[in-house]
Amino acid sequence: MSRKVSVVEKIHSVNDQLAAENQGRLLEAGIFSINLMASPGAGKTSLIEKTLAGLDPAFSVAAIDGDVATSIDADRASEAGATAVQINTGGQCHIDASMLRSALDTLDLPNFNLLLVENVGNLICPASFKLGTDKNVLIASIPEGDDKPYKYPAMYQDVDALIINKIDLLPYIDFDMDYFNKGVEMLNPGLTTFPISCKTGEGLDSWITWLTEQIQAGKSS
Amino acid sequence: MSRKVSVVEKIHSVNDQLAAENQGRLLEAGIFSINLMASPGAGKTSLIEKTLAGLDPAFSVAAIDGDVATSIDADRASEAGATAVQINTGGQCHIDASMLRSALDTLDLPNFNLLLVENVGNLICPASFKLGTDKNVLIASIPEGDDKPYKYPAMYQDVDALIINKIDLLPYIDFDMDYFNKGVEMLNPGLTTFPISCKTGEGLDSWITWLTEQIQAGKSS
Repeated sequence: MSRKVSVVEKIHSVNDQLAAENQGRLLEAGIFSINLMASPGAGKTSLIEKTLAGLDPAFSVAAIDGDVATSIDADRASEAGATAVQINTGGQCHIDASMLRSALDTLDLPNFNLLLVENVGNLICPASFKLGTDKNVLIASIPEGDDKPYKYPAMYQDVDALIINKIDLLPYIDFDMDYFNKGVEMLNPGLTTFPISCKTGEGLDSWITWLTEQIQAGKSS
Repeated sequence: MSRKVSVVEKIHSVNDQLAAENQGRLLEAGIFSINLMASPGAGKTSLIEKTLAGLDPAFSVAAIDGDVATSIDADRASEAGATAVQINTGGQCHIDASMLRSALDTLDLPNFNLLLVENVGNLICPASFKLGTDKNVLIASIPEGDDKPYKYPAMYQDVDALIINKIDLLPYIDFDMDYFNKGVEMLNPGLTTFPISCKTGEGLDSWITWLTEQIQAGKSS
Protein backbone atom coordinates (compact mmCIF):
# COMPACT_ATOMS: atom_id res chain seq x y z
CA MET A 1 0.00 0.00 0.00
CA SER A 2 2.75 2.49 0.92
CA ARG A 3 4.57 1.52 -2.33
CA LYS A 4 1.50 2.41 -4.35
CA VAL A 5 1.14 5.77 -2.62
CA SER A 6 4.77 6.69 -3.24
CA VAL A 7 4.53 5.85 -6.96
CA VAL A 8 1.41 8.01 -7.29
CA GLU A 9 3.09 10.88 -5.40
CA LYS A 10 6.08 10.72 -7.71
CA ILE A 11 3.88 10.85 -10.82
CA HIS A 12 2.13 13.94 -9.47
CA SER A 13 5.34 15.71 -8.48
CA VAL A 14 6.87 15.19 -11.96
CA ASN A 15 3.59 16.40 -13.49
CA ASP A 16 3.54 19.53 -11.31
CA GLN A 17 7.07 20.39 -12.40
CA LEU A 18 6.19 20.04 -16.09
CA ALA A 19 3.00 22.06 -15.53
CA ALA A 20 5.07 24.90 -14.05
CA GLU A 21 7.28 24.82 -17.16
CA ASN A 22 4.21 24.94 -19.43
CA GLN A 23 2.90 27.88 -17.41
CA GLY A 24 6.16 29.74 -17.91
CA ARG A 25 6.10 29.20 -21.68
CA LEU A 26 2.48 30.34 -22.00
CA LEU A 27 3.12 33.41 -19.84
CA GLU A 28 6.19 34.36 -21.85
CA ALA A 29 4.23 34.00 -25.08
CA GLY A 30 1.48 36.29 -23.71
CA ILE A 31 -1.24 33.75 -24.46
CA PHE A 32 -4.26 33.27 -22.19
CA SER A 33 -4.99 29.58 -21.68
CA ILE A 34 -7.84 27.44 -20.43
CA ASN A 35 -8.02 23.79 -19.40
CA LEU A 36 -11.58 22.81 -20.33
CA MET A 37 -12.92 19.79 -18.44
CA ALA A 38 -16.26 17.95 -18.43
CA SER A 39 -18.04 14.60 -18.63
CA PRO A 40 -18.29 12.91 -22.01
CA GLY A 41 -20.81 14.80 -24.12
CA ALA A 42 -21.27 17.83 -21.86
CA GLY A 43 -20.40 20.14 -24.75
CA LYS A 44 -16.67 20.92 -24.67
CA THR A 45 -16.25 20.90 -28.45
CA SER A 46 -19.56 22.71 -29.01
CA LEU A 47 -18.41 25.43 -26.60
CA ILE A 48 -15.13 25.78 -28.51
CA GLU A 49 -17.09 26.14 -31.76
CA LYS A 50 -19.43 28.77 -30.28
CA THR A 51 -16.52 30.60 -28.65
CA LEU A 52 -14.68 30.85 -31.96
CA ALA A 53 -17.85 32.14 -33.64
CA GLY A 54 -18.46 34.74 -30.92
CA LEU A 55 -14.96 36.06 -30.18
CA ASP A 56 -13.46 39.11 -31.91
CA PRO A 57 -11.91 37.62 -35.08
CA ALA A 58 -8.78 39.67 -34.37
CA PHE A 59 -7.91 37.09 -31.68
CA SER A 60 -5.93 34.14 -32.91
CA VAL A 61 -6.99 30.90 -31.22
CA ALA A 62 -5.27 27.53 -30.79
CA ALA A 63 -7.15 24.43 -29.63
CA ILE A 64 -5.49 21.31 -28.25
CA ASP A 65 -7.93 18.39 -28.10
CA GLY A 66 -7.34 15.37 -25.91
CA ASP A 67 -9.14 12.13 -26.65
CA VAL A 68 -8.59 8.45 -26.01
CA ALA A 69 -9.29 7.88 -29.73
CA THR A 70 -10.20 9.68 -33.00
CA SER A 71 -9.61 13.26 -34.14
CA ILE A 72 -13.32 14.19 -34.29
CA ASP A 73 -12.94 17.09 -31.81
CA ALA A 74 -9.78 18.57 -33.33
CA ASP A 75 -11.41 18.41 -36.77
CA ARG A 76 -14.42 20.34 -35.43
CA ALA A 77 -12.21 22.95 -33.73
CA SER A 78 -10.21 23.34 -36.93
CA GLU A 79 -13.33 23.79 -39.05
CA ALA A 80 -14.52 26.44 -36.56
CA GLY A 81 -11.36 28.46 -37.22
CA ALA A 82 -8.82 27.40 -34.59
CA THR A 83 -5.35 26.06 -35.20
CA ALA A 84 -6.03 22.60 -33.82
CA VAL A 85 -3.69 19.97 -32.41
CA GLN A 86 -4.95 16.50 -31.51
CA ILE A 87 -3.56 14.58 -28.54
CA ASN A 88 -4.53 10.92 -28.59
CA THR A 89 -3.87 9.73 -25.07
CA GLY A 90 -3.67 6.07 -26.06
CA GLY A 91 -6.37 5.04 -23.63
CA GLN A 92 -5.28 7.32 -20.79
CA CYS A 93 -8.15 9.04 -19.03
CA HIS A 94 -6.75 12.59 -18.87
CA ILE A 95 -4.22 14.93 -20.46
CA ASP A 96 -1.09 15.36 -18.37
CA ALA A 97 1.45 18.18 -18.43
CA SER A 98 3.90 16.15 -20.49
CA MET A 99 1.31 15.59 -23.25
CA LEU A 100 0.48 19.29 -23.24
CA ARG A 101 4.17 20.14 -23.52
CA SER A 102 4.51 17.97 -26.64
CA ALA A 103 1.45 19.66 -28.16
CA LEU A 104 2.79 23.14 -27.33
CA ASP A 105 6.00 22.23 -29.17
CA THR A 106 4.00 22.07 -32.41
CA LEU A 107 2.60 25.62 -32.07
CA ASP A 108 4.29 28.99 -32.61
CA LEU A 109 2.91 30.26 -29.31
CA PRO A 110 3.50 34.06 -29.58
CA ASN A 111 1.21 34.04 -32.64
CA PHE A 112 -1.82 33.19 -30.50
CA ASN A 113 -4.00 35.15 -28.06
CA LEU A 114 -5.96 32.23 -26.65
CA LEU A 115 -5.29 28.54 -26.09
CA LEU A 116 -8.21 26.24 -25.37
CA VAL A 117 -7.15 22.82 -24.09
CA GLU A 118 -10.01 20.35 -24.35
CA ASN A 119 -9.33 17.66 -21.79
CA VAL A 120 -10.55 14.03 -22.06
CA GLY A 121 -14.25 13.60 -21.19
CA ASN A 122 -14.00 12.57 -17.53
CA LEU A 123 -15.16 14.17 -14.24
CA ILE A 124 -12.51 12.54 -12.08
CA CYS A 125 -8.95 12.02 -13.34
CA PRO A 126 -8.30 15.41 -15.05
CA ALA A 127 -8.81 17.16 -11.68
CA SER A 128 -5.60 15.53 -10.38
CA PHE A 129 -3.30 16.63 -13.20
CA LYS A 130 -2.38 20.31 -13.46
CA LEU A 131 -1.44 21.37 -16.96
CA GLY A 132 -0.05 24.87 -16.36
CA THR A 133 -2.93 26.78 -17.97
CA ASP A 134 -4.16 30.12 -16.55
CA LYS A 135 -7.65 28.87 -15.71
CA ASN A 136 -9.44 25.59 -15.15
CA VAL A 137 -12.97 25.70 -16.52
CA LEU A 138 -15.59 22.99 -15.94
CA ILE A 139 -18.66 22.42 -18.10
CA ALA A 140 -21.60 20.88 -16.27
CA SER A 141 -24.55 19.75 -18.34
CA ILE A 142 -28.22 19.81 -17.32
CA PRO A 143 -28.97 16.17 -18.36
CA GLU A 144 -26.13 14.92 -16.11
CA GLY A 145 -28.31 15.77 -13.11
CA ASP A 146 -28.24 18.18 -10.19
CA ASP A 147 -26.25 15.93 -7.83
CA LYS A 148 -22.93 16.09 -9.66
CA PRO A 149 -21.17 18.67 -7.40
CA TYR A 150 -21.86 16.38 -4.44
CA LYS A 151 -20.64 13.27 -6.26
CA TYR A 152 -17.55 14.73 -7.97
CA PRO A 153 -16.39 17.30 -5.39
CA ALA A 154 -12.69 17.38 -6.37
CA MET A 155 -13.56 18.58 -9.86
CA TYR A 156 -15.90 21.33 -8.62
CA GLN A 157 -13.51 22.44 -5.88
CA ASP A 158 -10.56 23.18 -8.10
CA VAL A 159 -12.03 25.11 -11.03
CA ASP A 160 -11.92 28.87 -11.68
CA ALA A 161 -15.16 29.09 -13.66
CA LEU A 162 -18.19 26.89 -14.29
CA ILE A 163 -20.30 26.69 -17.41
CA ILE A 164 -23.74 25.09 -17.06
CA ASN A 165 -24.59 23.93 -20.58
CA LYS A 166 -27.81 22.65 -22.20
CA ILE A 167 -30.14 24.94 -20.25
CA ASP A 168 -32.50 24.62 -23.24
CA LEU A 169 -33.30 21.12 -21.88
CA LEU A 170 -34.43 22.40 -18.45
CA PRO A 171 -38.16 22.10 -19.32
CA TYR A 172 -37.76 18.38 -20.11
CA ILE A 173 -35.55 17.28 -17.21
CA ASP A 174 -35.95 17.10 -13.42
CA PHE A 175 -33.08 19.37 -12.45
CA ASP A 176 -33.22 21.37 -9.21
CA MET A 177 -30.99 24.39 -9.89
CA ASP A 178 -31.07 25.49 -6.23
CA TYR A 179 -29.81 22.08 -5.07
CA PHE A 180 -27.08 22.13 -7.76
CA ASN A 181 -26.00 25.71 -6.88
CA LYS A 182 -25.97 24.90 -3.16
CA GLY A 183 -23.48 22.09 -3.83
CA VAL A 184 -21.30 24.35 -5.99
CA GLU A 185 -21.35 27.15 -3.39
CA MET A 186 -20.37 24.73 -0.61
CA LEU A 187 -17.36 23.47 -2.56
CA ASN A 188 -16.27 26.63 -4.34
CA PRO A 189 -17.81 29.78 -2.80
CA GLY A 190 -18.42 32.66 -5.21
CA LEU A 191 -17.43 30.63 -8.28
CA THR A 192 -17.99 32.52 -11.56
CA THR A 193 -20.80 30.65 -13.33
CA PHE A 194 -22.25 30.90 -16.84
CA PRO A 195 -25.58 29.16 -17.55
CA ILE A 196 -25.65 28.71 -21.33
CA SER A 197 -27.06 26.76 -24.23
CA CYS A 198 -24.66 26.01 -27.06
CA LYS A 199 -27.73 24.98 -29.07
CA THR A 200 -29.80 28.19 -28.76
CA GLY A 201 -26.92 30.56 -27.98
CA GLU A 202 -28.51 31.72 -24.71
CA GLY A 203 -26.00 33.05 -22.17
CA LEU A 204 -23.01 32.82 -24.50
CA ASP A 205 -22.55 36.62 -24.57
CA SER A 206 -21.60 36.71 -20.85
CA TRP A 207 -19.06 33.93 -21.38
CA ILE A 208 -17.54 35.69 -24.42
CA THR A 209 -17.35 38.99 -22.48
CA TRP A 210 -15.57 37.33 -19.54
CA LEU A 211 -13.18 35.48 -21.86
CA THR A 212 -12.37 38.66 -23.83
CA GLU A 213 -11.53 40.46 -20.57
CA GLN A 214 -9.23 37.61 -19.56
CA ILE A 215 -7.43 37.65 -22.91
CA GLN A 216 -6.99 41.44 -22.79
CA ALA A 217 -5.80 41.37 -19.17
CA GLY A 218 -3.18 38.80 -20.18
CA LYS A 219 -1.94 40.92 -23.05
CA SER A 220 -1.68 44.14 -21.03
CA SER A 221 0.10 42.57 -18.05
CA MET B 1 8.67 4.22 -19.62
CA SER B 2 9.15 0.44 -19.36
CA ARG B 3 9.04 0.77 -15.57
CA LYS B 4 5.65 2.48 -15.78
CA VAL B 5 4.33 -0.23 -18.11
CA SER B 6 5.47 -3.02 -15.81
CA VAL B 7 3.79 -1.43 -12.77
CA VAL B 8 0.52 -1.07 -14.73
CA GLU B 9 0.75 -4.67 -15.95
CA LYS B 10 1.28 -5.90 -12.41
CA ILE B 11 -1.77 -3.97 -11.15
CA HIS B 12 -3.91 -5.52 -13.90
CA SER B 13 -2.64 -9.04 -13.32
CA VAL B 14 -3.39 -8.83 -9.57
CA ASN B 15 -6.82 -7.39 -10.40
CA ASP B 16 -7.57 -10.21 -12.87
CA GLN B 17 -6.72 -12.80 -10.23
CA LEU B 18 -9.04 -11.18 -7.68
CA ALA B 19 -11.74 -10.86 -10.34
CA ALA B 20 -11.50 -14.62 -11.00
CA GLU B 21 -11.94 -15.24 -7.27
CA ASN B 22 -15.01 -12.96 -7.16
CA GLN B 23 -16.42 -14.81 -10.17
CA GLY B 24 -16.00 -18.14 -8.36
CA ARG B 25 -17.78 -16.87 -5.25
CA LEU B 26 -20.70 -15.44 -7.23
CA LEU B 27 -21.04 -18.64 -9.28
CA GLU B 28 -20.99 -20.80 -6.17
CA ALA B 29 -23.68 -18.61 -4.59
CA GLY B 30 -25.88 -18.97 -7.72
CA ILE B 31 -26.26 -15.22 -8.06
CA PHE B 32 -26.42 -13.48 -11.44
CA SER B 33 -24.27 -10.33 -11.44
CA ILE B 34 -23.87 -7.23 -13.57
CA ASN B 35 -21.15 -4.57 -13.70
CA LEU B 36 -23.08 -1.43 -14.71
CA MET B 37 -20.94 1.26 -16.32
CA ALA B 38 -21.68 4.71 -17.77
CA SER B 39 -20.73 8.38 -17.86
CA PRO B 40 -21.73 10.56 -14.91
CA GLY B 41 -25.46 11.14 -15.03
CA ALA B 42 -26.31 8.63 -17.76
CA GLY B 43 -28.83 6.97 -15.45
CA LYS B 44 -27.17 4.06 -13.62
CA THR B 45 -29.02 4.64 -10.35
CA SER B 46 -32.30 5.41 -12.13
CA LEU B 47 -32.00 2.13 -14.02
CA ILE B 48 -31.42 0.27 -10.75
CA GLU B 49 -34.55 1.90 -9.29
CA LYS B 50 -36.65 1.03 -12.35
CA THR B 51 -35.24 -2.51 -12.45
CA LEU B 52 -36.19 -3.12 -8.83
CA ALA B 53 -39.68 -1.77 -9.51
CA GLY B 54 -40.13 -3.96 -12.62
CA LEU B 55 -38.55 -7.27 -11.54
CA ASP B 56 -40.52 -10.12 -10.01
CA PRO B 57 -40.53 -9.26 -6.24
CA ALA B 58 -39.61 -12.89 -5.55
CA PHE B 59 -36.07 -12.06 -6.67
CA SER B 60 -33.81 -10.77 -3.93
CA VAL B 61 -31.48 -8.04 -5.18
CA ALA B 62 -28.21 -6.63 -3.83
CA ALA B 63 -26.72 -3.37 -5.14
CA ILE B 64 -23.11 -2.32 -4.65
CA ASP B 65 -22.62 1.36 -5.48
CA GLY B 66 -19.21 2.81 -6.25
CA ASP B 67 -18.65 6.56 -5.95
CA VAL B 68 -15.73 8.87 -5.35
CA ALA B 69 -17.84 10.54 -2.64
CA THR B 70 -21.26 10.44 -0.91
CA SER B 71 -23.75 7.60 -0.44
CA ILE B 72 -26.50 9.20 -2.57
CA ASP B 73 -26.68 6.23 -4.98
CA ALA B 74 -26.66 3.50 -2.34
CA ASP B 75 -29.38 5.36 -0.44
CA ARG B 76 -31.52 5.46 -3.60
CA ALA B 77 -30.92 1.76 -4.31
CA SER B 78 -31.82 0.92 -0.72
CA GLU B 79 -35.03 2.95 -0.85
CA ALA B 80 -35.93 1.13 -4.08
CA GLY B 81 -35.76 -2.20 -2.23
CA ALA B 82 -32.22 -3.52 -2.72
CA THR B 83 -29.80 -4.51 -0.01
CA ALA B 84 -27.30 -1.76 -0.75
CA VAL B 85 -23.57 -1.51 -0.01
CA GLN B 86 -21.66 1.70 -0.67
CA ILE B 87 -18.05 1.68 -1.88
CA ASN B 88 -16.39 5.07 -1.58
CA THR B 89 -13.34 4.78 -3.79
CA GLY B 90 -11.53 7.66 -2.08
CA GLY B 91 -11.07 9.59 -5.32
CA GLN B 92 -10.29 6.56 -7.46
CA CYS B 93 -11.98 6.63 -10.86
CA HIS B 94 -13.27 3.04 -10.98
CA ILE B 95 -14.16 0.05 -8.82
CA ASP B 96 -11.51 -2.66 -8.86
CA ALA B 97 -11.86 -6.35 -8.01
CA SER B 98 -10.36 -5.87 -4.56
CA MET B 99 -12.99 -3.24 -3.65
CA LEU B 100 -15.74 -5.55 -4.92
CA ARG B 101 -14.33 -8.42 -2.84
CA SER B 102 -14.54 -6.28 0.32
CA ALA B 103 -18.14 -5.35 -0.51
CA LEU B 104 -19.06 -9.01 -1.20
CA ASP B 105 -17.71 -9.88 2.26
CA THR B 106 -20.54 -7.84 3.79
CA LEU B 107 -23.30 -9.74 1.96
CA ASP B 108 -24.74 -13.20 2.60
CA LEU B 109 -24.47 -14.05 -1.10
CA PRO B 110 -26.60 -17.24 -1.37
CA ASN B 111 -29.58 -15.15 -0.18
CA PHE B 112 -29.59 -13.11 -3.39
CA ASN B 113 -30.67 -13.77 -6.98
CA LEU B 114 -29.19 -10.66 -8.56
CA LEU B 115 -26.23 -8.42 -7.84
CA LEU B 116 -26.08 -5.02 -9.53
CA VAL B 117 -22.67 -3.37 -9.23
CA GLU B 118 -22.91 0.33 -10.08
CA ASN B 119 -19.45 1.41 -11.16
CA VAL B 120 -18.07 4.96 -10.84
CA GLY B 121 -19.40 7.39 -13.49
CA ASN B 122 -16.62 7.21 -16.07
CA LEU B 123 -16.44 6.00 -19.69
CA ILE B 124 -12.73 5.13 -19.61
CA CYS B 125 -11.12 3.61 -16.52
CA PRO B 126 -13.77 1.01 -15.51
CA ALA B 127 -13.26 -0.73 -18.89
CA SER B 128 -9.74 -1.75 -17.80
CA PHE B 129 -10.69 -3.38 -14.50
CA LYS B 130 -12.55 -6.68 -14.59
CA LEU B 131 -14.63 -7.32 -11.49
CA GLY B 132 -15.66 -10.95 -11.96
CA THR B 133 -19.34 -10.28 -12.69
CA ASP B 134 -21.29 -12.37 -15.22
CA LYS B 135 -22.04 -9.47 -17.57
CA ASN B 136 -20.70 -5.99 -18.29
CA VAL B 137 -23.52 -3.62 -19.18
CA LEU B 138 -23.01 -0.07 -20.49
CA ILE B 139 -25.58 2.71 -20.33
CA ALA B 140 -25.28 5.29 -23.09
CA SER B 141 -27.39 8.41 -22.83
CA ILE B 142 -28.94 10.40 -25.69
CA PRO B 143 -27.71 13.83 -24.48
CA GLU B 144 -24.10 12.57 -24.44
CA GLY B 145 -24.17 12.61 -28.23
CA ASP B 146 -24.01 10.10 -31.08
CA ASP B 147 -20.20 10.07 -31.38
CA LYS B 148 -19.45 8.29 -28.10
CA PRO B 149 -18.78 4.78 -29.50
CA TYR B 150 -16.12 6.30 -31.78
CA LYS B 151 -14.54 8.31 -28.95
CA TYR B 152 -14.65 5.67 -26.18
CA PRO B 153 -14.13 2.44 -28.16
CA ALA B 154 -12.64 0.33 -25.35
CA MET B 155 -15.79 0.71 -23.29
CA TYR B 156 -18.12 -0.20 -26.17
CA GLN B 157 -15.93 -3.11 -27.31
CA ASP B 158 -15.96 -5.01 -24.05
CA VAL B 159 -19.59 -4.93 -22.94
CA ASP B 160 -22.19 -7.71 -23.16
CA ALA B 161 -25.25 -5.46 -23.42
CA LEU B 162 -25.94 -1.79 -24.12
CA ILE B 163 -28.75 0.33 -22.73
CA ILE B 164 -29.51 3.58 -24.57
CA ASN B 165 -31.22 5.76 -21.96
CA LYS B 166 -33.14 9.05 -22.14
CA ILE B 167 -34.77 8.32 -25.50
CA ASP B 168 -37.58 10.67 -24.35
CA LEU B 169 -35.13 13.51 -25.12
CA LEU B 170 -34.64 12.50 -28.79
CA PRO B 171 -37.06 15.21 -30.08
CA TYR B 172 -34.98 17.96 -28.42
CA ILE B 173 -31.45 16.79 -29.27
CA ASP B 174 -29.48 16.35 -32.49
CA PHE B 175 -28.71 12.65 -32.19
CA ASP B 176 -28.21 10.52 -35.30
CA MET B 177 -29.19 7.00 -34.19
CA ASP B 178 -27.90 5.43 -37.42
CA TYR B 179 -24.45 6.98 -36.91
CA PHE B 180 -24.43 5.85 -33.26
CA ASN B 181 -25.53 2.29 -34.13
CA LYS B 182 -22.96 2.08 -36.93
CA GLY B 183 -20.20 2.83 -34.41
CA VAL B 184 -21.55 0.25 -31.96
CA GLU B 185 -21.86 -2.42 -34.68
CA MET B 186 -18.29 -1.78 -35.84
CA LEU B 187 -16.90 -2.26 -32.31
CA ASN B 188 -19.21 -4.94 -30.98
CA PRO B 189 -21.15 -6.71 -33.77
CA GLY B 190 -24.58 -8.01 -32.80
CA LEU B 191 -24.49 -6.40 -29.34
CA THR B 192 -27.76 -6.78 -27.41
CA THR B 193 -29.20 -3.25 -27.15
CA PHE B 194 -32.09 -1.78 -25.17
CA PRO B 195 -33.31 1.73 -26.08
CA ILE B 196 -35.17 2.94 -22.98
CA SER B 197 -36.36 5.92 -21.00
CA CYS B 198 -36.13 5.62 -17.23
CA LYS B 199 -38.34 8.72 -17.09
CA THR B 200 -41.29 7.50 -19.18
CA GLY B 201 -40.69 3.76 -18.74
CA GLU B 202 -40.50 3.15 -22.52
CA GLY B 203 -38.48 0.05 -23.44
CA LEU B 204 -37.96 -1.11 -19.85
CA ASP B 205 -40.07 -4.25 -20.37
CA SER B 206 -37.53 -5.71 -22.85
CA TRP B 207 -34.69 -5.05 -20.41
CA ILE B 208 -36.61 -6.66 -17.53
CA THR B 209 -37.45 -9.70 -19.68
CA TRP B 210 -33.79 -10.18 -20.70
CA LEU B 211 -32.60 -9.75 -17.12
CA THR B 212 -35.20 -12.21 -15.78
CA GLU B 213 -34.02 -14.80 -18.33
CA GLN B 214 -30.40 -14.27 -17.25
CA ILE B 215 -31.29 -14.69 -13.56
CA GLN B 216 -33.30 -17.85 -14.24
CA ALA B 217 -30.59 -19.34 -16.47
CA GLY B 218 -28.09 -18.78 -13.64
CA LYS B 219 -30.32 -20.54 -11.10
CA SER B 220 -31.00 -23.56 -13.29
CA SER B 221 -27.37 -24.11 -14.35
